[in-house]
Amino acid sequence: MSDDEVIVMADGGGGGRTRELLRTVILPAIDNPMLRGLDDAACIDRPAGNLVFTTDSFVVSPLFFPGGDIGRLAVCGTVNDLAMQGGRPLYLSLGLILEEGLRVGDLRRIMRSLGETAKEAGVMVVTGDTKVVERGARNGIYINTAGLGERLSGVDTHVANARPGDRVVVNGTLGDHGIAVMSVREGIRFETELVSDAAPLGGMIGDLLAAVPGIHVLRDPTRGGVAAALNDIAESSGVCVRLQEGAIPVRPEVRGACDLLGFDPLNVANEGKAVIICASQDVDAVLAALRKHPLGADACEIGEIVAAPAGRVLLHTKLGGERIVDVPSGEDLPRIC
Amino acid sequence: MSDDEVIVMADGGGGGRTRELLRTVILPAIDNPMLRGLDDAACIDRPAGNLVFTTDSFVVSPLFFPGGDIGRLAVCGTVNDLAMQGGRPLYLSLGLILEEGLRVGDLRRIMRSLGETAKEAGVMVVTGDTKVVERGARNGIYINTAGLGERLSGVDTHVANARPGDRVVVNGTLGDHGIAVMSVREGIRFETELVSDAAPLGGMIGDLLAAVPGIHVLRDPTRGGVAAALNDIAESSGVCVRLQEGAIPVRPEVRGACDLLGFDPLNVANEGKAVIICASQDVDAVLAALRKHPLGADACEIGEIVAAPAGRVLLHTKLGGERIVDVPSGEDLPRIC
Repeated sequence: MSDDEVIVMADGGGGGRTRELLRTVILPAIDNPMLRGLDDAACIDRPAGNLVFTTDSFVVSPLFFPGGDIGRLAVCGTVNDLAMQGGRPLYLSLGLILEEGLRVGDLRRIMRSLGETAKEAGVMVVTGDTKVVERGARNGIYINTAGLGERLSGVDTHVANARPGDRVVVNGTLGDHGIAVMSVREGIRFETELVSDAAPLGGMIGDLLAAVPGIHVLRDPTRGGVAAALNDIAESSGVCVRLQEGAIPVRPEVRGACDLLGFDPLNVANEGKAVIICASQDVDAVLAALRKHPLGADACEIGEIVAAPAGRVLLHTKLGGERIVDVPSGEDLPRIC
Repeated sequence: MSDDEVIVMADGGGGGRTRELLRTVILPAIDNPMLRGLDDAACIDRPAGNLVFTTDSFVVSPLFFPGGDIGRLAVCGTVNDLAMQGGRPLYLSLGLILEEGLRVGDLRRIMRSLGETAKEAGVMVVTGDTKVVERGARNGIYINTAGLGERLSGVDTHVANARPGDRVVVNGTLGDHGIAVMSVREGIRFETELVSDAAPLGGMIGDLLAAVPGIHVLRDPTRGGVAAALNDIAESSGVCVRLQEGAIPVRPEVRGACDLLGFDPLNVANEGKAVIICASQDVDAVLAALRKHPLGADACEIGEIVAAPAGRVLLHTKLGGERIVDVPSGEDLPRIC
């Protein structure tokens, strides 16, 4: 199929056209021995340990943005959910919903990016499905991936494990992904190019857990940003998270765009970041392990866990005040992942 | 949330509104201990055997049709793919893409149906994700499920295992699902109500494999119907499938609608049927095992495997002629699953 053709309804009928689309556009990008049989399901040898299983759908608009695209996101979002549960990402399923009118060249570009990101993440796409729907919201494509990983033994990074005295660490600057996407939509230009942080974190988290297996909580601050992730942790663990505003790493261009658009960087999505909560005595080892990895070079401590008020996230401001960091209501940033 | 409310963009932002939607509409229908933690990934104890992993997206239009709805389909389609690989269905992931404007009452009805079908199929929804997109094709909802099953040991039902001399069996009438959906779209009324055959086949296939572990091939004839499934088998196994037209079970109302709409029942989708290929000496045991199960009461033999012409499906007609049964091009029946 040539790049200038567009997807038509018949491409999703399951017949000859669907096969050609698979053979010429979709499969070349994600080829591997397990996928080659084109069965309706993949057979996986009995794994050595416990499993982690997760899913995410991706509806980002626009499909291409600085630093990434929906294909890269569809791998990162899912493997990062596995990594946050202490799972080594192994296999992905891929559900494509294509809109009539999508350019084949765009689909090919998305698939290449998805395939390259899967390689980077060390996962194989082992089963998939393709459907076509009528022209609608004109997004062109929605992608669902489900992920399967092997859970590292002795690791328990559940959201309810934060304890008073613990420290809160992130592996780099916050809000880059959400603002990179919004900047395209709103036509904002930066002096230096701001790119999404979308990245597969399995490698960095694997190194971290090898160095410090006793990490208390891991969470990726995607939709709803660090604010939503920390509120989840505060609520589930029955503790208070106290952040130091001055310690929170935000790029000047992200801060500027947030001021312009009326967002709080704490509410903006990240796609290559982890919130890490560890015992006080482990924080130096955590920072050292993260900083050894390219994706954790800017790791820093941003706050601590205290007992009260339980269930709350508080921000100690630069001016010496304190404010509550709420869960965003959800209206702020639709379609950023 | 009340049934008359509609979904808005903010319901997909990952904040407070998303939580309320989950708590009041989505989770009550699929509640189970593994889902209750609301983690981003589910932890699964080390399975005893090999695994099967599959995914399917569901975009059927209309959402509700005689005998089922998109929720029932989203369970059946995926668990049946597992069952066809000799997998006992265990876990599902659930990716919901909701369109702005979807009635909460419709979503609640779909979720109830999905939850009931999961119970019927013996699977648990253990992880999920919900996104909202702008009003578009006006379908209201797309659903992706990925499924994980345990592969029964000693079973190999791969599409390449058909051998000359084998027999071809189906567990009941063909084309019911596709025509039930099309009848709503085309406004066709039948004297007796025609309903979709959508059903989870894990139980029936489990009983069948317990009785006859040496089944050669299992395939569910969904998109593209029995014609597409048998062409896959003929091609992968390098054999010819010879069907007896007089033996193929099609309800009179399905045949009538096919004549009216210009479809071949062999090309029409089924969602509760299996094509079973077994050694000649096993065919009586296969039919007996199927007929003991409510979903296999109308099981019958429809043809045989011969050596040549390899890769072809032939139909021996009632008038004594023979015609090639081709893979449908895909234009005939869009959006039926």
